[in-house]
Amino acid sequence: MKPLSLQPWEILARLRQKQPVVHHLTNWVTIYDCAQVVKVLGGSPVMAHAPEEVAQMTGLAQALVLNIGTLTPDFVAAMLLAAQAAKARGIPVVLDVCGAGATALRDEASQRLLNDARIDIIKGNASEIARVSGLAVQTKGVDAAQVAADLRQIAQNLARQRQAVVVITGAVDIVADAQRLFLVQNGHPLMGQVVGTGCMATSIIGAFAAVEPDLAAAAAGALVCFGVAAELAARENPGPARFKERLFDALYFLDEATVRERMDVEGER
Amino acid sequence: MKPLSLQPWEILARLRQKQPVVHHLTNWVTIYDCAQVVKVLGGSPVMAHAPEEVAQMTGLAQALVLNIGTLTPDFVAAMLLAAQAAKARGIPVVLDVCGAGATALRDEASQRLLNDARIDIIKGNASEIARVSGLAVQTKGVDAAQVAADLRQIAQNLARQRQAVVVITGAVDIVADAQRLFLVQNGHPLMGQVVGTGCMATSIIGAFAAVEPDLAAAAAGALVCFGVAAELAARENPGPARFKERLFDALYFLDEATVRERMDVEGER
Amino acid sequence: MKPLSLQPWEILARLRQKQPVVHHLTNWVTIYDCAQVVKVLGGSPVMAHAPEEVAQMTGLAQALVLNIGTLTPDFVAAMLLAAQAAKARGIPVVLDVCGAGATALRDEASQRLLNDARIDIIKGNASEIARVSGLAVQTKGVDAAQVAADLRQIAQNLARQRQAVVVITGAVDIVADAQRLFLVQNGHPLMGQVVGTGCMATSIIGAFAAVEPDLAAAAAGALVCFGVAAELAARENPGPARFKERLFDALYFLDEATVRERMDVEGER
Repeated sequence: MKPLSLQPWEILARLRQKQPVVHHLTNWVTIYDCAQVVKVLGGSPVMAHAPEEVAQMTGLAQALVLNIGTLTPDFVAAMLLAAQAAKARGIPVVLDVCGAGATALRDEASQRLLNDARIDIIKGNASEIARVSGLAVQTKGVDAAQVAADLRQIAQNLARQRQAVVVITGAVDIVADAQRLFLVQNGHPLMGQVVGTGCMATSIIGAFAAVEPDLAAAAAGALVCFGVAAELAARENPGPARFKERLFDALYFLDEATVRERMDVEGER
Repeated sequence: MKPLSLQPWEILARLRQKQPVVHHLTNWVTIYDCAQVVKVLGGSPVMAHAPEEVAQMTGLAQALVLNIGTLTPDFVAAMLLAAQAAKARGIPVVLDVCGAGATALRDEASQRLLNDARIDIIKGNASEIARVSGLAVQTKGVDAAQVAADLRQIAQNLARQRQAVVVITGAVDIVADAQRLFLVQNGHPLMGQVVGTGCMATSIIGAFAAVEPDLAAAAAGALVCFGVAAELAARENPGPARFKERLFDALYFLDEATVRERMDVEGER
Repeated sequence: MKPLSLQPWEILARLRQKQPVVHHLTNWVTIYDCAQVVKVLGGSPVMAHAPEEVAQMTGLAQALVLNIGTLTPDFVAAMLLAAQAAKARGIPVVLDVCGAGATALRDEASQRLLNDARIDIIKGNASEIARVSGLAVQTKGVDAAQVAADLRQIAQNLARQRQAVVVITGAVDIVADAQRLFLVQNGHPLMGQVVGTGCMATSIIGAFAAVEPDLAAAAAGALVCFGVAAELAARENPGPARFKERLFDALYFLDEATVRERMDVEGER
């Protein structure tokens, strides 16, 4: 086990200082929460999806977040334009393969984005990432499914195949690149009772990636901060709605000492 | 007066145990709340509207919820594809005729969905249902209007004409099928101060219908649980925003004893 | 300095009494908050964007709110249809030039709406309004930028050029028409930590304009009430999420005595 090269609180401090613009093409269910979670962390979220402006908007950004949660073919085409602009600028692109495995449209969109765009961070739950890896998995809607195969191996294989950081969220989050693998054990089961925490995780990863070139460290740091905030928000057993409110505020007030104290990450290799 | 054949808490318990997938094609204003209300009740919400995938997504679901709140002609076409898939699978379809009577587009969409799809539960406020029934009513936006005609008769006539369950929400909710009529008196006026409670009611009805084949019992049970949760949430006179937060959490924590104690339903015939 | 001809609490009282319908074509990020903020103030929000129904829906409304936050060319075309219907009815039209300066699409849409429609109130932050005025400004996403030129002069010049009320929101809000200029100093920095407060301000202005023909007084009164509610909500140093919840509830409970006591407006000329 080896520690992260860069500590989560250092990336968080840089995020608050640099206030990067994070351009999203995301889904219509959680779009507000994606924007607000970037905002409370100190970033500057912007949502724009018209093909006529996505490239120019990405041109103002320090990271691009793509999420296929409520995709249409036109929306995926706009994502490709934005990703092209991101590549030209050298800014990181995060893709949430939300619902991969549920329909052919989502499978095709995932593959098209992975093949035709430069995706730097691929993020999903266990069944989604397994599906994107070409493994046969039954997806029940967009919820996590138990996947028999070794998730760590799946993550690292996909990371090597796609030359990207791969993130599998779950009770324990996995972050892998071609050489390294981190297990983030922060978080709380109440996150699973709130629609949008998966999308919010993706947006936070985008915000961290906007200010930290070591993208595995950025992704792991993002998940540590989100998980620690969730642990604080879950105190006193709130319901999901009160938990969600407290989660945003815990992220806003999150400080180095708390992250240091509660961080629970293991690194392999 | 006769009691419900199946008690609301029994359906709620089954919902929490079976965790059905509820596929929505709903409006862009309240889409998050529609998803989250299904989630806190133990269901698995999924939102997808692309014509290329709606049939396949409905194929994974145990109920389909349609809501024309921010409709376009393309969106209605996608609803018809999803409804066709629902019919092929034999899962229930709930339609919220949100804003019927406000514009010709909404009237046409309502009629087209009722004529060309198999709608199992038709839900609206008094003016919307009166309009869908072919009665001349003035709608002021999407708010409830006072309708002079006998609402119970309107509900039952439409139920017989369309061979569907008809739900009219209001201070007292009406649930009618061809033979039976229930009056649900649970609820609280603060629900009228929160945008989206009507849409949330529709989604809850969809989640209950996903696990209970007696669709009138499912709809009445859903409205009882929602109304009881609202009564709990309204304690201590909160404002609408705090009330809404507490409403979600009251649904999450709702237990049999509370529903039993507070349930206020009358059945006729 | 001269006081407002009409006091904010008088317009608020009229809004609660008349319950005007406020038709929105707004962005997909904050659409719920735009609706809910009109609702808690006593208005009746309606969101509809299909070109087939926008004119008819505007025909039911007492004000029209346009917001280009997540625009597409089709959406702007629908805005023009709605604005035409608003002009025919003589109801006020408010335009939030959200993100003007960020992309050519937003600049073109702003100009097209200002040239081809009758816009009664133009609202944006400093950089957006400067851009709409034809001044060269660097916009960083949709956040406020420091603009060197005299903002008051920019506001009044644009008001004269477009024969409209111009609103520049910021730490101090500016409201200008051809003759008058008001500075609204109510508000709280936490508003800048919540995505959507700018859009909410626009919707509140729309609701006030629906019941008050002196549109500068309506806009200033709306910003006073919003700012006072924010001051109340910010007590005890909440995080952004709790602040937002309390902001909605403070607007709902806002009374004349509180607005009278806290109102901080200066009028020039």
